[in-house]
Amino acid sequence: MRGRFISLEGGEGVGKSTQLRRLAEALRADGREVVETREPGGSPGAEAIRALLLEGETDRWTPEAEALLFAAARADHVARLIRPALERGAWVLCDRFLDSSLAYQGGAGGLDETAIRQLHQIGSDGLMPDRTLLLELPGSDAAKREFARDNGRLDRFGRKTGEYHDRVAGTFRKLAEADPQRFRAVNAEGAMEEVTDRLLAALADIR
Amino acid sequence: MRGRFISLEGGEGVGKSTQLRRLAEALRADGREVVETREPGGSPGAEAIRALLLEGETDRWTPEAEALLFAAARADHVARLIRPALERGAWVLCDRFLDSSLAYQGGAGGLDETAIRQLHQIGSDGLMPDRTLLLELPGSDAAKREFARDNGRLDRFGRKTGEYHDRVAGTFRKLAEADPQRFRAVNAEGAMEEVTDRLLAALADIR
Repeated sequence: MRGRFISLEGGEGVGKSTQLRRLAEALRADGREVVETREPGGSPGAEAIRALLLEGETDRWTPEAEALLFAAARADHVARLIRPALERGAWVLCDRFLDSSLAYQGGAGGLDETAIRQLHQIGSDGLMPDRTLLLELPGSDAAKREFARDNGRLDRFGRKTGEYHDRVAGTFRKLAEADPQRFRAVNAEGAMEEVTDRLLAALADIR
Repeated sequence: MRGRFISLEGGEGVGKSTQLRRLAEALRADGREVVETREPGGSPGAEAIRALLLEGETDRWTPEAEALLFAAARADHVARLIRPALERGAWVLCDRFLDSSLAYQGGAGGLDETAIRQLHQIGSDGLMPDRTLLLELPGSDAAKREFARDNGRLDRFGRKTGEYHDRVAGTFRKLAEADPQRFRAVNAEGAMEEVTDRLLAALADIR
């Protein structure tokens, strides 16, 4: 039986990586194999591309080059890690996937959404998550949390303007509304345990 | 007045880089600004991607990831170097361009040609050379010349099989036949000076 592919999405500092670890533990308690991964990266080739994407000046890449690099990293990640795991029946939890490209390079970066979907079709044969969990926080809280976590050492995306991050959040919301079958928007405020419970509830119908 | 964009194509060891330098000198003697460049690479971002593409095992990347990386490098190269040079009226001589992706990842690698053209449309707005010079040598000679030049230190592509390189050569020929307006196939055998004269003759109508 094929496993399940779950992506976690949302802006910087909404707590995706913490919640991903907690979700993985809860799902392993059911006896499942769970693979925890993230984008950009998740496989040796994709991690090498990750360094090109996250280091350097905010305008290091044009939106087009950036989208192609993300699609290349994703193609490697899907071919080397995600598809083999799903085929042996594992659950794959991924911190960011295609929707981040649609929100960052598309909605916020100005690149055509159709182009980004074409790149994903060519690179990864259009593989989509079975469920996408969108963690949402008011923008100001998210910025504060990120700043605290990274102690001011933000990557290329973290250093972009507040307006850019507002466009990211707006695009995530629009994507979730357009595909209610796949997406669940989850409030990321409150105690860690409460947020995990909300996320598990949002997976109940596919567990 | 916009400059001219000339690409040199062909398999490993046909003498593209030597001939590119000689062509640039001849065109500069006319008083033109001539920019010499190469792919993958040609701009700082693209050179960083070049290292990922040419180093490592021959099967380091899937054909899809490889095509996306080439398109990303090309998008950066076009945006940062080639378009600005053409806009200020310079001639740009480029060692390999889109046709190499069509020959290596397409004809030899098995990736769909339409997909490779889509990547170029998205990444570089489909920019095409005004003239493409295809240098041709019998396969065995090419292999010998490459081996001599690199003293046995071949990159990821040079280490692929002879059959792979035959498919590359066959695809170049097919591309040239399909677009006789843009392509000129030039015999790369004989003295360096003779080959340069043939190449200059193949540019006569656009000089």
